[in-house]
Amino acid sequence: MDQSVENKKYAPIGVFDSGVGGLTVAREIMRQLPRERIIYFGDTARVPYGSKSRETIIRYSRQIIHFLESKGVKAIVVACNTASAFALEEIRPEMKMPIIGVVKPGARVAAGLTRNGRIGVIGTEGTVGSHIYTEMIHRHNPQAEVLGKACPLFVPLVEEGWLKDPVTIEVAKRYLSSFQESDIDTLILGCTHYPLLRSMIHEIMGEQVNLVNPAYETAQGLKRLLEQHDLVNDGQEAREPMYQFYVSDAAEKFKNFANSILPCEIEKARLIHIEE
Amino acid sequence: MDQSVENKKYAPIGVFDSGVGGLTVAREIMRQLPRERIIYFGDTARVPYGSKSRETIIRYSRQIIHFLESKGVKAIVVACNTASAFALEEIRPEMKMPIIGVVKPGARVAAGLTRNGRIGVIGTEGTVGSHIYTEMIHRHNPQAEVLGKACPLFVPLVEEGWLKDPVTIEVAKRYLSSFQESDIDTLILGCTHYPLLRSMIHEIMGEQVNLVNPAYETAQGLKRLLEQHDLVNDGQEAREPMYQFYVSDAAEKFKNFANSILPCEIEKARLIHIEE
Repeated sequence: MDQSVENKKYAPIGVFDSGVGGLTVAREIMRQLPRERIIYFGDTARVPYGSKSRETIIRYSRQIIHFLESKGVKAIVVACNTASAFALEEIRPEMKMPIIGVVKPGARVAAGLTRNGRIGVIGTEGTVGSHIYTEMIHRHNPQAEVLGKACPLFVPLVEEGWLKDPVTIEVAKRYLSSFQESDIDTLILGCTHYPLLRSMIHEIMGEQVNLVNPAYETAQGLKRLLEQHDLVNDGQEAREPMYQFYVSDAAEKFKNFANSILPCEIEKARLIHIEE
Repeated sequence: MDQSVENKKYAPIGVFDSGVGGLTVAREIMRQLPRERIIYFGDTARVPYGSKSRETIIRYSRQIIHFLESKGVKAIVVACNTASAFALEEIRPEMKMPIIGVVKPGARVAAGLTRNGRIGVIGTEGTVGSHIYTEMIHRHNPQAEVLGKACPLFVPLVEEGWLKDPVTIEVAKRYLSSFQESDIDTLILGCTHYPLLRSMIHEIMGEQVNLVNPAYETAQGLKRLLEQHDLVNDGQEAREPMYQFYVSDAAEKFKNFANSILPCEIEKARLIHIEE
């Protein structure tokens, strides 16, 4: 057997996001693929991505992918809806290794789940304005009607820690009211912060609406992708450390947030200057 | 008379902020110094600054100041509380031209206005956590008690346009409640977005509390600084354009916001890559 292919299996998976949101994706990978190592990068110096332009997001994503490549990763997960929407298709042809975003897996599942063909998508301005979910859903279900709604206050509310707060409930009701009349039966949580508001959104939307969490679907998609490329870590060669975290700013704050949502305790997040 | 000094008078003033907030400062300069030209830079690709670290803010501020110097400005206004708090004292010794921030002018006025010696400061996490207002107030009034409160949701609420919204009122009441028991008589609006919430904050705090808007005081301070350095534009040589705007991202969105709060119509905002 080719030694280099064999070694590649033990390489880590690169996961990146604009900040802490992508940790909900890393968490799913840890749960579903417990033998895989992860190198996570959070672009906390330039967060948020949701209000920035396509060109800027592509430039930032390229810088981060080069950094992850320099760390020897075997595959890359774009754990940010805005970067998946704006940068993934642009960058994929330049890549030598498998890369997966969060949009396609979520779109595929939503397209299959809906019974009445009416799907809602909530996300940042960038993600919703890109209409990428509509495009991806139509590949699987061309008849589906897709209704988008940007929810720019959800990210700062989550980062403020007001997860079950009356203010957040009021904001959520306001944002989600546009779906009340449109009779959707499936709603995509199209931003990696939103799974942290899942139970609140479920209560507002009611039992009859399926909530799709792309983080879960992305970990499933990653598993298939690693199998296709014969890159699954079979765990025969245990290597430390399992999980490494890099950020472009405010490492201590990142660490505290990470420790509040990850299943494992992280010891440190390393600071790097991604622009250079 | 020295020709180069004379020419310098007609040079523009460089004004910068993390994004659109500093436009409230630019607006005051336009009102109080209508003969001065302005080159404004909004770092919209890396907004917000309020949650970022001191080191990052210093690095970003240096990049922007180099850009403004390359445009031939005669003085610089740091129209961002976080950058004033973290970067101004660090960068001033490196500068050949006058530079002024928004913290000192606001602190000076608040120190003089208070009757009971109890002053509140609201701002971003960065500004409040730096205790820079306390330090500056104590230079003028060493006995004053200064109480800070970070209000991280105010900026996204302003940028969402929910200026007189019940949600914003509820958030403001929550943030400001910490001042109810402490009997302050003066409150500094320590973030350039906050003057846009001024009437709401006034209503919650009541008549007995003076609101200090550092944008106004900064324009006054700039006027004195230009006089000291013999740099006042006497308007004898009219030069176009009066006002120029540069941003690091999303120029169209910036232009629309600017046109909603500035006294003059701006035609365009130019996009530049500030990192390079």
